[in-house]
Amino acid sequence: MSRSNLLAVDAMGGDHAPEAIIDGLEIAAERHKLAQFLIFGDEAKLAPLIAATKRLKKQCKLCHAGDVVTGDMKPTVALRLRDSSMRRAIDSVLAGEAAGVISAGNTGALLALSKIVLKTLKGIDRPAMAATAPSAKGDVVMLDLGLNVVYDARNLVEFALMGEIFARIVLGLPAPTLGLLNIGSEEGKGDETLRSAAATLRESPIGKQFYGFVEGHDIAAGTVDVVVTDGFTGNVALKTGEGALKLVGDLLRRVFSAGPLAKVGYVLARGALKRLKETLDPRRYNGAVLLGLNGVVVKSHGGTDALGFAHAVDVAMDMITNDFNSRIAEGLAAMDRALLSAEPVAAPNA
Amino acid sequence: MSRSNLLAVDAMGGDHAPEAIIDGLEIAAERHKLAQFLIFGDEAKLAPLIAATKRLKKQCKLCHAGDVVTGDMKPTVALRLRDSSMRRAIDSVLAGEAAGVISAGNTGALLALSKIVLKTLKGIDRPAMAATAPSAKGDVVMLDLGLNVVYDARNLVEFALMGEIFARIVLGLPAPTLGLLNIGSEEGKGDETLRSAAATLRESPIGKQFYGFVEGHDIAAGTVDVVVTDGFTGNVALKTGEGALKLVGDLLRRVFSAGPLAKVGYVLARGALKRLKETLDPRRYNGAVLLGLNGVVVKSHGGTDALGFAHAVDVAMDMITNDFNSRIAEGLAAMDRALLSAEPVAAPNA
Repeated sequence: MSRSNLLAVDAMGGDHAPEAIIDGLEIAAERHKLAQFLIFGDEAKLAPLIAATKRLKKQCKLCHAGDVVTGDMKPTVALRLRDSSMRRAIDSVLAGEAAGVISAGNTGALLALSKIVLKTLKGIDRPAMAATAPSAKGDVVMLDLGLNVVYDARNLVEFALMGEIFARIVLGLPAPTLGLLNIGSEEGKGDETLRSAAATLRESPIGKQFYGFVEGHDIAAGTVDVVVTDGFTGNVALKTGEGALKLVGDLLRRVFSAGPLAKVGYVLARGALKRLKETLDPRRYNGAVLLGLNGVVVKSHGGTDALGFAHAVDVAMDMITNDFNSRIAEGLAAMDRALLSAEPVAAPNA
Repeated sequence: MSRSNLLAVDAMGGDHAPEAIIDGLEIAAERHKLAQFLIFGDEAKLAPLIAATKRLKKQCKLCHAGDVVTGDMKPTVALRLRDSSMRRAIDSVLAGEAAGVISAGNTGALLALSKIVLKTLKGIDRPAMAATAPSAKGDVVMLDLGLNVVYDARNLVEFALMGEIFARIVLGLPAPTLGLLNIGSEEGKGDETLRSAAATLRESPIGKQFYGFVEGHDIAAGTVDVVVTDGFTGNVALKTGEGALKLVGDLLRRVFSAGPLAKVGYVLARGALKRLKETLDPRRYNGAVLLGLNGVVVKSHGGTDALGFAHAVDVAMDMITNDFNSRIAEGLAAMDRALLSAEPVAAPNA
C-alpha cells in the first residue's frame, strides 16, 4: 500500500456504524479504484461485513481496535483510550502509514485527538473546519465552522488561504473568489479584526480573488466561492441555513400530501422535484474537513448513511491525491513573501 | 387625536415611496380602525395620493416636510437635515404627539436619529433590533439583528427580557420560551459572556421560560419562541436563513417550469404551493423593531410593497396599543428585584 492513496477509517463511529461505514466504503472503493483503506475497529464485527463486499475487500486492510469512542464521551476521556478505533486511525496518519483519516464519530473527540496527535501544520496558527454548502451558483466552501471562537485577523487570512486551496481541489475551480462574512458590504463595516483581515487579503497573492465583505444572504446566493468567517459565526450560519432548507423540505412534503390534486401534481412534477432534492441533499455536503493539521482529517456526519459516508470519502480522497497540505505550505510561503515585500521599509535581510 | 393610537409615518423612505407607503397605510387603516397616522413628507406629492384613498384620508393628518433622507446618505449627514420627513416623524414622538414612528427609509439614519432624538429607555443599556421569522412551529422572534457588535452578558439578558415581552405582544404567546444562540446546546459551550447571561436568565423571573442554549438549526425548527443573540451573529443568521429560503424558492420556480409535465403538476398543486408561499412570504415578516428607546420605532424593508408595509404597521400598532415600553419598565423592575434578592448577602436596605 502506498501512503499517497491510503485513507485510515474509524469504522466504529456514527449512528449507523459499522454497517453504514462499510457500505459507504464499498461505494467509495468503486469510485476510487486506486484508493486503499486501513479500517480500524472491532474485528469480530467488521470481518464478516468486509468479507461480504465485492470491491472493498480487495482494497482494504482490517486492523483490530478494542475500544470505541462513544458519541457522548468527553474528549478528555477519549484521549485516554489508546486502543480506540478513532485513536488508532489517527495514529496511523502520525506513523506515516495513512495520508488521512475519516470518522463519523464524536466530533469533539476527533478534533481534540487530531490536534493533539497530528499537530498544527507549520506556519498555520490555528486549524479550521470547512465544508461545502449549496448556492444558486453551485457549491460554496465555508470556514471556520466551529473550531475558533477566539481568533485574530491573521487567523482569518489563514482561513482564507486554506479555503481557497480547498475550493480549488474539492470544487475544481481554477481561481475561486473569496468573501469575508460581515453585517454589511461597505468597507467600514464590522470590527477592527475584520477590517484588518480584509486589508491584508487585498494585498495578498489572492487579492484579485478577494471580493470583500459579504453578508448572510450572499452564502446561498453564491456571491463568492469561499465564505470566510470565525468559528462561532460560521457554525451558526451553516446550521441556520441547513435549518431553513429543512423547514422548506418539510413544508413541501406537507404541501404535496395536502389533497388528491396536490398528490397528482407531485407525481407529474416528480422528476423535476427529485432533481431539486438531489441539489439540496445534505449527503452531497457531507464531510467537514479539519484544515491545517499534519494530515487530512475528515469528519462525516454521525447520522449519515452509506451514500453520505461515500461522499465524505470523496472529499478525503480529493485532498489526499491533490496533496492539499503541500499546497497549503506553498500558499503560505507565497503569502508571507508578498506580505513581507509589501512592507514599506523591509530590511534587506528580513 | 389621542397619543396612544397615533403613529408617525415617514412617507418618503423606501424604494417605492411614497405610493407604496400610502397604499400600505390604506390597508392598515382598514385593519386598525381606531389608528391615526401623522404622515410626514412632500405635501405636493402626498396630498393627491391621500385624497384618493377611501379610509386613510379620514384617519390621518398630513405634515409637510421639505427634505428627504436618501438611501445612500450617511447617518451624520441625515442628522443635520432638520426638516427631513424621517426626522420630523421622530421629533413628533419626542414631542409626545405620536406614540411611535415607522419608516421604510435608510436604516442607518433611522437608527442614529432614533437613538439620538428619543434616547434609550431608563434601565436599558443598549437598544436592540428584533424581527420575526418563520419556523416549523410558527413564527419566532430574533434579536439583536445588528445594532450591537459589542455587548456584554447584561445586554443579552436585557435583549431576552425585551424579546420576551415583544413575543407576548406581537405573537400573542402567554409565556414565550427563550433560547440563547450558541454553537452547541451543552452548558459549557460558548464564551464566558454567553455562560454568564445563561446563568442570570436561569435565576431571573423569566427563568422558567428559559430553555438554555440553542443552535442555528433551532431557529427554523422553532425550538424556542425567542432567539437571543448579539447583533453580529443575529444579523448573519437572519440573512443566511432568508438567503436559504430564497434559494429554494428560486429552485422551485425552475423545477416547475422544467417541462410540460412539471407545469401541469404545478397547476394541480397550485393551491397547496400558494399556502407554502404565503407561510414563507417575506412580507409577513416585514417590520424590524428597535426595542429599548423612548418610543416605538419600526423599520420597514426598503423594497417592500403596500402589503409588506401594512404588516410593519401591524407590528407598530400592536406595540403601541399594548404599551410595550411600560411593560419593559415593569419587566426590568421585576428582574432587578429578583436578581437583587438572589444576592446571598443583600443588605436589608439595598
